[in-house]
Amino acid sequence: MDDARVAVETGVDGVDVVIGTSQFLRKFSHGKDMNYIAQSAIEVIEFVKSKGIEIRFSSEDSFRSDIVDLLNIYRTVDKIGVNRVGIADTVGCANPRQVYELVKTLKSVVSCDIECHFHNDTGCAIANAYTALEAGAKLIDVSVLGIGERNGITPLGALMARMITADRDYVLSKYKLHKLRDLENLVADAVQINIPFNNPITGFCAFTHKAGIHAKAILANPSTYEILNPHDFGLTRYIHFANRLTGWNAIKSRVDQLNLQLTDDQVKEVTNKIKKLGDVRQLSIDDVDSIIRDFHAAQSTTNTPLLKPVNNGNDEDVEEPEAKKQKV
Amino acid sequence: MDDARVAVETGVDGVDVVIGTSQFLRKFSHGKDMNYIAQSAIEVIEFVKSKGIEIRFSSEDSFRSDIVDLLNIYRTVDKIGVNRVGIADTVGCANPRQVYELVKTLKSVVSCDIECHFHNDTGCAIANAYTALEAGAKLIDVSVLGIGERNGITPLGALMARMITADRDYVLSKYKLHKLRDLENLVADAVQINIPFNNPITGFCAFTHKAGIHAKAILANPSTYEILNPHDFGLTRYIHFANRLTGWNAIKSRVDQLNLQLTDDQVKEVTNKIKKLGDVRQLSIDDVDSIIRDFHAAQSTTNTPLLKPVNNGNDEDVEEPEAKKQKV
Repeated sequence: MDDARVAVETGVDGVDVVIGTSQFLRKFSHGKDMNYIAQSAIEVIEFVKSKGIEIRFSSEDSFRSDIVDLLNIYRTVDKIGVNRVGIADTVGCANPRQVYELVKTLKSVVSCDIECHFHNDTGCAIANAYTALEAGAKLIDVSVLGIGERNGITPLGALMARMITADRDYVLSKYKLHKLRDLENLVADAVQINIPFNNPITGFCAFTHKAGIHAKAILANPSTYEILNPHDFGLTRYIHFANRLTGWNAIKSRVDQLNLQLTDDQVKEVTNKIKKLGDVRQLSIDDVDSIIRDFHAAQSTTNTPLLKPVNNGNDEDVEEPEAKKQKV
Repeated sequence: MDDARVAVETGVDGVDVVIGTSQFLRKFSHGKDMNYIAQSAIEVIEFVKSKGIEIRFSSEDSFRSDIVDLLNIYRTVDKIGVNRVGIADTVGCANPRQVYELVKTLKSVVSCDIECHFHNDTGCAIANAYTALEAGAKLIDVSVLGIGERNGITPLGALMARMITADRDYVLSKYKLHKLRDLENLVADAVQINIPFNNPITGFCAFTHKAGIHAKAILANPSTYEILNPHDFGLTRYIHFANRLTGWNAIKSRVDQLNLQLTDDQVKEVTNKIKKLGDVRQLSIDDVDSIIRDFHAAQSTTNTPLLKPVNNGNDEDVEEPEAKKQKV
């Protein structure tokens, strides 16, 4: 109650009342029983409401709490008029079907909004958040890269990836997705971590393709192997061509798509060229297109071998493998 | 069919027949229709079976395939006797409730085992795998750290984390979980990546606690804020004491648990000591216990200030902040 008074005095717009309701937290963290919790909650909520300030009531460790206790206290605080109630999977133990059941049940008990807070200890934070929305929750707690009071809060970026597959237009109209990479880089720098290689959307593996059959289909239509469009996030797709798995088939189909005429031997020649370039640096599809176009132009105007290095506007020297060896 | 013949000739124990059944893969990858797919599948399956070799039939991109097409072909291959059928979320678009429905429906159509393959593009690979098991799937494709033909296959470690919360005894009896860290390090070294900071179980944030109220409860009973026991995975729990969020309360409750008598002032003194040490290196709970015990022993035998540096059997010098400053 003293805390609530101090909070109100600071001039905040809203106050969040959180209490651990599981037997674990009741015993080992704060040591209070459910009656005490309910009485304190009512007192604090009525005080905060009397000041005209928005209020949320949330249980902590909701998924290891007694369901009857939970529904009782949520109904009580809903009746005295909280703006929203919150469910928290504090230890990251919940699975999607449990989440769906609890949110659905809670929705039948309260009339206010439902907010959910998940952790990723067992890899379900994103799926649980999405399933909670399906069950009728309105708000999800997220953080950048999942970093928060304990690791693995539902990460903003991955939840965007999950949501955009459900309703692309809505997500694009509501969120500035192209800011995501800068935001994650900012936070990663601040806490001195690397963006994980497998991070949804911004991890360096996200839009990179290597295997031949994949690359071929991605060139023909990215939707074949990608549910997300990198351009929605201000990012680019990379195809690793410098790879023994890559066939000249992928390049041939790209040549056809570009509506250029090359013989199979010529396609094989430009494929080798692309593979060598791919050894030096990562190639985007635009890079590959430029190489193909340059090659095609050279073939059309002259029969001499193509000697000019393809440069695409940057200053890196493109070296043949032989040249590299001499440097060692 | 030629591929199947070659596969059988190599002397393998089993053959896996995979074909893309979604409109995307049918159009942009292989270009075959469902009749062609069914006929080829039957031919290959009967050939492989005639050689006495185990056979699995799997669709690719199952969650963007027509459900009637899918169930038709699965029923067909089940009737001619495949050992298992596979569902693949090739593009990582499936969510847990879809997975549950599809696996449940498929289970009512086939009598063979069901295997599932997920990708993590939208953050649901682990949750989907777990939900598939709930719905009656028997096998899940996993890989170390999710690395495979395309990024984000259900990672072994995170699925173990998910499964051990459901049935600890079963998981411990079946899997050598203490090998997980070495296995992940081996693969990470081989492909030159870092284990993500937020990787379930083995990421450096997994069993590390910082905030005061968390640390206090973790010391009292780790189950309050951890659903997983690090010892199950051959790992150790760390508490960050060197942090302005940490109160002497956490240390006081640990002193009580260790059944030692210290005054509040003495607890505050040893808390400062622990915080300074925590600046120098990460402290495990064992480290903290040793410091408390040494401090307590010193208090009991003498009234002179504690000068002996606490060393805990390693050779690092524990320096006061003043000493550090002089070095600069």
